[in-house]
Amino acid sequence: MKMESVLMVIMVMEMVGLITCKNVLMMVADDAGLELKAYGNTACKMPHLDTLAERSVVFTRAFTSVSSCSPSRAALLTGLPVHQNGMYGLHHSVHHFSSFPRVRSLPSVLADNGVRTGIVGKKHVGPEDVYPFEFAHTEETESIMQVGRNISRIRDLVHTFLTNNDTRPFFLYIGFHDPHRCGHTHPEYGQFCEKFGDGSPGMGTIPDWEPTHYDPKDVQVPHFVQNTTAARTDLAAQYRTLSRLDQGIGLVLTELAASGHSQDTLVIYTSDNGIPFPIGRTNFYDPGIQEPLLVSSPLNPNSWGSSSSDLASLLDLTPTVLAWFNLSYPHYFIWKKDGPVVLTGKSLLPFLTPGNMTVRHHQNYQEFTTMSHENLTLKVKHKPQHIRHQMEDVVAASEEAAVYASHDLHEVTMYYPMRAVRTPSFKLVQNLHYRMPFPVDQDLYLAPSFQDILNRTREGEQLPWFTTLSHYYHRPRWQLYDLRRDPLERRNVAGKRSYGEVQATLEGRLQAWQHFTHDPWRCGPGAVLEDSGNHATRPVCLPLFNGL
Amino acid sequence: MKMESVLMVIMVMEMVGLITCKNVLMMVADDAGLELKAYGNTACKMPHLDTLAERSVVFTRAFTSVSSCSPSRAALLTGLPVHQNGMYGLHHSVHHFSSFPRVRSLPSVLADNGVRTGIVGKKHVGPEDVYPFEFAHTEETESIMQVGRNISRIRDLVHTFLTNNDTRPFFLYIGFHDPHRCGHTHPEYGQFCEKFGDGSPGMGTIPDWEPTHYDPKDVQVPHFVQNTTAARTDLAAQYRTLSRLDQGIGLVLTELAASGHSQDTLVIYTSDNGIPFPIGRTNFYDPGIQEPLLVSSPLNPNSWGSSSSDLASLLDLTPTVLAWFNLSYPHYFIWKKDGPVVLTGKSLLPFLTPGNMTVRHHQNYQEFTTMSHENLTLKVKHKPQHIRHQMEDVVAASEEAAVYASHDLHEVTMYYPMRAVRTPSFKLVQNLHYRMPFPVDQDLYLAPSFQDILNRTREGEQLPWFTTLSHYYHRPRWQLYDLRRDPLERRNVAGKRSYGEVQATLEGRLQAWQHFTHDPWRCGPGAVLEDSGNHATRPVCLPLFNGL
Ligand SMILES: [Ca+2]
Ligand SMILES: [Ca+2]
Ligand SMILES: [Mg+2]
Ligand SMILES: [Mg+2]
Repeated sequence: MKMESVLMVIMVMEMVGLITCKNVLMMVADDAGLELKAYGNTACKMPHLDTLAERSVVFTRAFTSVSSCSPSRAALLTGLPVHQNGMYGLHHSVHHFSSFPRVRSLPSVLADNGVRTGIVGKKHVGPEDVYPFEFAHTEETESIMQVGRNISRIRDLVHTFLTNNDTRPFFLYIGFHDPHRCGHTHPEYGQFCEKFGDGSPGMGTIPDWEPTHYDPKDVQVPHFVQNTTAARTDLAAQYRTLSRLDQGIGLVLTELAASGHSQDTLVIYTSDNGIPFPIGRTNFYDPGIQEPLLVSSPLNPNSWGSSSSDLASLLDLTPTVLAWFNLSYPHYFIWKKDGPVVLTGKSLLPFLTPGNMTVRHHQNYQEFTTMSHENLTLKVKHKPQHIRHQMEDVVAASEEAAVYASHDLHEVTMYYPMRAVRTPSFKLVQNLHYRMPFPVDQDLYLAPSFQDILNRTREGEQLPWFTTLSHYYHRPRWQLYDLRRDPLERRNVAGKRSYGEVQATLEGRLQAWQHFTHDPWRCGPGAVLEDSGNHATRPVCLPLFNGL
Repeated sequence: MKMESVLMVIMVMEMVGLITCKNVLMMVADDAGLELKAYGNTACKMPHLDTLAERSVVFTRAFTSVSSCSPSRAALLTGLPVHQNGMYGLHHSVHHFSSFPRVRSLPSVLADNGVRTGIVGKKHVGPEDVYPFEFAHTEETESIMQVGRNISRIRDLVHTFLTNNDTRPFFLYIGFHDPHRCGHTHPEYGQFCEKFGDGSPGMGTIPDWEPTHYDPKDVQVPHFVQNTTAARTDLAAQYRTLSRLDQGIGLVLTELAASGHSQDTLVIYTSDNGIPFPIGRTNFYDPGIQEPLLVSSPLNPNSWGSSSSDLASLLDLTPTVLAWFNLSYPHYFIWKKDGPVVLTGKSLLPFLTPGNMTVRHHQNYQEFTTMSHENLTLKVKHKPQHIRHQMEDVVAASEEAAVYASHDLHEVTMYYPMRAVRTPSFKLVQNLHYRMPFPVDQDLYLAPSFQDILNRTREGEQLPWFTTLSHYYHRPRWQLYDLRRDPLERRNVAGKRSYGEVQATLEGRLQAWQHFTHDPWRCGPGAVLEDSGNHATRPVCLPLFNGL
């Protein structure tokens, strides 16, 4: 049969319910950004991801709800923001964060419904009972370099998983450790582990990887990275490592095809957080939270090669996978007083059926304004009556679709809670601990790009960067960006008269989401949340009069 | 036999090794302070604790290493400060902190050495594998009101434990929940649960408790509490609840005697943190960290009724209990790179043998200055050469015994890391997040004493308190108190010229302890700790140039 005929047969089989074994392959890169043709990067060569993009809907406005490894993965796998699932920061070592024991995750819910689950590579979430994978080859029992960066080993593990004779549908999650930085823990392999397995002396050989070399002058410097030799060299190393990620994705997709599952498997590619450069990872600026997101459905060939600029959140992936398996989210409680757990994301599958997109747009991102939150109005300052009403802006702020974000820590010493709401037109961020400088992690600190900024700043040398180190560290409590006029988030308009109503509207939406998701931080730094005893049925924020 | 003869026989039996079954009974109150005659409080009637004090060494300068429930209990049971055992904050609910899985605790080490372990009442630490008790009746499986406050129920459980025919030595830990506040979760029982079980309508009856009533005018207001009707009423309720604690201790000691184990059991009484008033719990002011500590050894009757003003830390209790059982601390690793775990506390048993006290004084609190910490000198600012050397002060600061303290969070939203060193003469505190206001917990916020401060401050009314709400919230990075001249910690001399060398000396000692105990926060808010990759064998603090 020709391709068209194959697809038609599949669609008919689907319609009459003949395809019972639908699977999901989810591939998550570590700290990857938008280094893809589909996102406008033509310097970084990612042929296998380009091919996947041609069979996918490319989401051009997809955002993680938190820009940190474990928190992002926990949110992705549970559909719950970190303040609701408990993974407030990194899982490993002294950071030691983990999700609450009663939280349900994709692998747990799917296993209960007869789906076979597997994970290869970086897991970085726990406890095991919350994130149980039947087939597991992760850093918990093996070298992360092998299961996360050695793409030949990854291919072999995927082969083992896919050639099992088990007839159950499957959910296979690949946690590539590329292109995470390496300089902090394994400097011998280069800044991004770009030498690991490249066949040069002492580096070992990954048989299936043909490293792509980049000259620092050929990289495409993102708008938020300083354009210096140090940064370009850093980016060239990142690109080289990205070639291993891309070829690894090619190997995995080849295994999927060889196993005969190309036609019944939803393939998702994304990344956990922004690239490990200042303004990126751990930040709520767009470079910190925007993610590549490719969703490839063999059942929806009409969607292939299309792109969507509608907002999508990685919190939507749990509902998406559940919808693909025709499963509903279980009825359960994390904490009795909070009532049953309700996801705030929505399935992205309607985007795969073009006719449904409009419907989806209006159904998605239900707002939380129906629940009462009179008690949470403490922080919404009353704006003077006479401010100039920018009606168009206010309508956009109140009616546009929105994604939400919630960050508490990355490393355990890096407490910097932030909450954000982002619509197509606006982003509002609250930095709860804004009087302290923004923290820097051990990994980024040693990065040549960051050292370059530190050194140039200290020496008073020229720094071709859009901001300064001091501005990077010291942030105001509220940051509001008018993304229509200022897509690069260069001009904070929080507190500006003309944006008064917009800000109040967005503060209200953000608070409503925080309340709906039972955010322990929802009273901010100036009030105490009381939600037990006399306040059990009606939580309140009570003021501290501490000047905040 | 007369008492003297009994004691002589016991001492002889001990000397010739005939007493093989030595036990420990550890009783930990929840948020109790120094409301005992032995500590100068004659208003609060605690007859059973007074009796115990008469058979104890009373430590008049005993300090917890952290002023928060779970952190303090974890530190007490492991001998490790929170930054080393992982219990950075509260264990329960959304706070969700727990010790690292490889940490060894008293119940775990003792069980491995043939000691039977039991816990009745508040546990508040985890995970179970780190804190395993063979006999356990705690909040994990039963009502904390019953196992922690119903002293008749506690007595019955202790009876069950002690009348078991098991011949192994035992370690029995009683976690009284009294006199913890109650207004926040169970306001129906009063501010301190002082009505719970008092026989009045709807309160139930605790048969063995005869509540002691106090008139608010008769309480002894601590120097750090405002002298107002609201605060005195609050204290009167606390005293009433303390009568339940005291009578519960009487019941437990009666059970111990009835079981025939009075003569072979070390009895320890202490509390986890300061009283739940501002300046107390969660603070590093003395009212936050000073604890009652009674150590009663039937084998050392010469020590009975004595008191010691030498510094003691609750970090000493794990070594004390191990020494009592003649056990050494196990050789193991929490993190491979940190090497084997070494306790920094020392057994208090030498204090029970008066002749040994001097020896103990000099052996205890070994300093950590022998290890190289050149790289950690970043924060020790060089003082001008011409400052007036107060040689006596500098000698005291550098040579006196010291206890150390480490706090990160109480509730998960209350991040306020502090590190402290306290000698008999000085206390130095570093507030790492000093630019943010000191946080207030849900429980304290609703307390009448705190509401009184809030209301009087907001209304501009007179407030008979030694400080102000604003000073309470806003603290400098460094706090240094000259306790000889200022025992109430009213005058911060940090940064004063005449204390320059004292401060530098104490900063050095504190840093050395932090380094020795592998404190992840040891580089403070102005630098990043690098301790892997190129820095694995020689950790360094590298500067952020963030203005701190
Ligand atoms: Ca990552
Ligand atoms: Ca306590
Ligand atoms: Mg990471
Ligand atoms: Mg408590």
